Amino acid sequence: MLEQLKRQVFDANMALPARGLVTFTWGNVSGIDRTSGLMVIKPSGVEYEVMSADDMVVVNMLGDVVEGYFKPSSDTATHLALYARYPELGGIVHTHSTYATSWAQANAPIPALGTTHADYFAGAIPCTRPLSRAEVTGEYELETGHVIAETLGDADPLHMPGILVSQHGPFCWGTTPEMAVHNAVVLEEVAKMAWITGTLNRQLPPMDDYLLNKHFSRKHGPDAYYGQN
Amino acid sequence: MLEQLKRQVFDANMALPARGLVTFTWGNVSGIDRTSGLMVIKPSGVEYEVMSADDMVVVNMLGDVVEGYFKPSSDTATHLALYARYPELGGIVHTHSTYATSWAQANAPIPALGTTHADYFAGAIPCTRPLSRAEVTGEYELETGHVIAETLGDADPLHMPGILVSQHGPFCWGTTPEMAVHNAVVLEEVAKMAWITGTLNRQLPPMDDYLLNKHFSRKHGPDAYYGQN
Amino acid sequence: MLEQLKRQVFDANMALPARGLVTFTWGNVSGIDRTSGLMVIKPSGVEYEVMSADDMVVVNMLGDVVEGYFKPSSDTATHLALYARYPELGGIVHTHSTYATSWAQANAPIPALGTTHADYFAGAIPCTRPLSRAEVTGEYELETGHVIAETLGDADPLHMPGILVSQHGPFCWGTTPEMAVHNAVVLEEVAKMAWITGTLNRQLPPMDDYLLNKHFSRKHGPDAYYGQN
Amino acid sequence: MLEQLKRQVFDANMALPARGLVTFTWGNVSGIDRTSGLMVIKPSGVEYEVMSADDMVVVNMLGDVVEGYFKPSSDTATHLALYARYPELGGIVHTHSTYATSWAQANAPIPALGTTHADYFAGAIPCTRPLSRAEVTGEYELETGHVIAETLGDADPLHMPGILVSQHGPFCWGTTPEMAVHNAVVLEEVAKMAWITGTLNRQLPPMDDYLLNKHFSRKHGPDAYYGQN
Repeated sequence: MLEQLKRQVFDANMALPARGLVTFTWGNVSGIDRTSGLMVIKPSGVEYEVMSADDMVVVNMLGDVVEGYFKPSSDTATHLALYARYPELGGIVHTHSTYATSWAQANAPIPALGTTHADYFAGAIPCTRPLSRAEVTGEYELETGHVIAETLGDADPLHMPGILVSQHGPFCWGTTPEMAVHNAVVLEEVAKMAWITGTLNRQLPPMDDYLLNKHFSRKHGPDAYYGQN
Repeated sequence: MLEQLKRQVFDANMALPARGLVTFTWGNVSGIDRTSGLMVIKPSGVEYEVMSADDMVVVNMLGDVVEGYFKPSSDTATHLALYARYPELGGIVHTHSTYATSWAQANAPIPALGTTHADYFAGAIPCTRPLSRAEVTGEYELETGHVIAETLGDADPLHMPGILVSQHGPFCWGTTPEMAVHNAVVLEEVAKMAWITGTLNRQLPPMDDYLLNKHFSRKHGPDAYYGQN
Repeated sequence: MLEQLKRQVFDANMALPARGLVTFTWGNVSGIDRTSGLMVIKPSGVEYEVMSADDMVVVNMLGDVVEGYFKPSSDTATHLALYARYPELGGIVHTHSTYATSWAQANAPIPALGTTHADYFAGAIPCTRPLSRAEVTGEYELETGHVIAETLGDADPLHMPGILVSQHGPFCWGTTPEMAVHNAVVLEEVAKMAWITGTLNRQLPPMDDYLLNKHFSRKHGPDAYYGQN
Repeated sequence: MLEQLKRQVFDANMALPARGLVTFTWGNVSGIDRTSGLMVIKPSGVEYEVMSADDMVVVNMLGDVVEGYFKPSSDTATHLALYARYPELGGIVHTHSTYATSWAQANAPIPALGTTHADYFAGAIPCTRPLSRAEVTGEYELETGHVIAETLGDADPLHMPGILVSQHGPFCWGTTPEMAVHNAVVLEEVAKMAWITGTLNRQLPPMDDYLLNKHFSRKHGPDAYYGQN
């Protein structure tokens, strides 16, 4: 079932250690098949070194396992909430990558400070509010999805393909699992440069709006002219 | 004698350079066989590149060498003091890993700032008081074990699987040598992120208690639901 | 056409990921043949893993593609403006390397703080003014070249083989594509050390002029005595 | 001539890129044969990738080339001055390693903050005064050796096996070329940790003297008990 998507999700998961975004099993990637309404996701706590594409878990939108002999990622409900809320998404990734997580721990959005950021994110990368005690002690992973959606609101998620969950870490997304991981790599690099920039100049205003818009639209939308398309 | 434990201790020692936790010979891992009361530990100052499982040294709880042609790690007495005080421990590791050691040099505990920390450590990671002149000029390594135990007190050592020795560096532990090294990798990453977080926001309070407890109990104890067990 | 230059430009582009200066496709190197007035440059958005020397694009000084089946780098107009203004240049490189880009994001020149810097750059490495709204919404890449030239002025570009474009990142150059990349590696390392130095001592004056001049002239000009020539 | 020493010096030079201490050709190691009074040193500006043991240059104490087809390192006079002043030395290394150079650029000694430092350096690692205009425009490399000796004075150089030259970078030494490089690796790691520690606690006093002395004497001198000797 969904062999191609399982392969894509597996490959995207394996890209996480290859790109230096995870320690041990601290990350997970999912992909969704919109036709069947089924999501493929990494199994919980399985080590990357021994994982194969067949180990991916298929769940329906209620979170029931439809295929697979492992338990799905403990963050499954967060992924499902985001797919349900944003039909544009085809892949989602969660990591504890060093620099993005440090911003999340600081409860601070990542300001747009340069064109690297603007090439991918159409503004500051938001950080959610902290979850309440009720949200954490209740359906925690589902509420994590809700607070992400609350923060992102009606924005186009492909114009802001990542977010920081307060005191936790980043979630990123895209039209495919591969693009979700691509955006997670960018977020980590942008987070590192924004940290260094901030220690060089603590009173820095965000970058000029017109430069941010120019770079985002060089790569996205009808006027894009970066690349071969 | 204790061939399996020697292999485990050797493998755990070899994981230290593989994980980037040691420079030269600045680290050691031990494991204990509770039945015989014998500890296996890395020889002192032997380079990882030339070390084999047969080079591991077996000592009794008094520190006498029972088997082995090398001198045991100079930190042997510290390990023995911790095994004697905390019967839960099956493996102990000491390193001078960069970020954890920097916190130890700053004489500062590592505050709990996010879920990465909370997944493994049930609160701030303590830093011991500095050893006194008498302790340093006396049985220094034994006293290092005592000051760790003084700081940890009656806490469950598996709920706080690592500590910083002031002006020195981290000691970590677990139920096995492998788990001790696992926790040392986590401590180093948590130490790095807490450093970055602190430079992003110097007035940050610790994370919410209910989030810390939620994440620790997702992975530990009767209500754990992370992973495949 | 220009097979040797295409090979040089390709090799110089491939050195960017090998030297850790680029993530994904965030960089480009060009070289110029002064006799024919033709420039060879990386194609836009093509991944390094699949690129070959034959994929390099040949353009004339007006930016028209003379040979090649790909679109040239989106930064082509910037490269051409610099070659037109500075006949000394044989190669140009643009990256978003972490530390140099962080200085560019901070809108700050990199002060000369030591002999590593002075061996290559005859003074502080300048940062351009931000481009105006009209420049960004107009012929953006061409204006980027103009603002670099405005900042560099009539200085010998081989005495200042790199610059920071405000809120964007570094451009470097040299007599060949290979030397341009060499200087980009140096700029990145100098940027990293200047950042660390600044956090160690925030009130540091620039280095002594006579030491800067001594080191620059050890490696450049008629009195050079470093190396084998 | 001096084949064994040439091999040792070559191996020590090749350890510099392997240990991440040099970019391009920014480093050099020498060794001395005290019987003949001849020094073997890396040729100037030759790339590590193409260098062989036969390329090492033999000079006498006046700096005259006795054997070799390359020019010796441009820092030759610094090395010779130190060998002349300190008969204990058998090997010397100079690098522009990132963290040690950053401290040198900050014109600041590296304070002793922990046992990693104390295991190798019997106190703060000094930084020289800036060289005067006359020293820089005169016999610069020789004067660099003189100002190192002026700073180190009559201290045992094996108790302080490295120093920072102001606005320049580190020089380290030992009884052999290999030990000199070993100490350069330690200096770099100590410099990195002292930087991080300083950003965690800017008002930190140096470590306790008795702890520093304990650790230094665990590894050095008549009461050493670390390692297998």
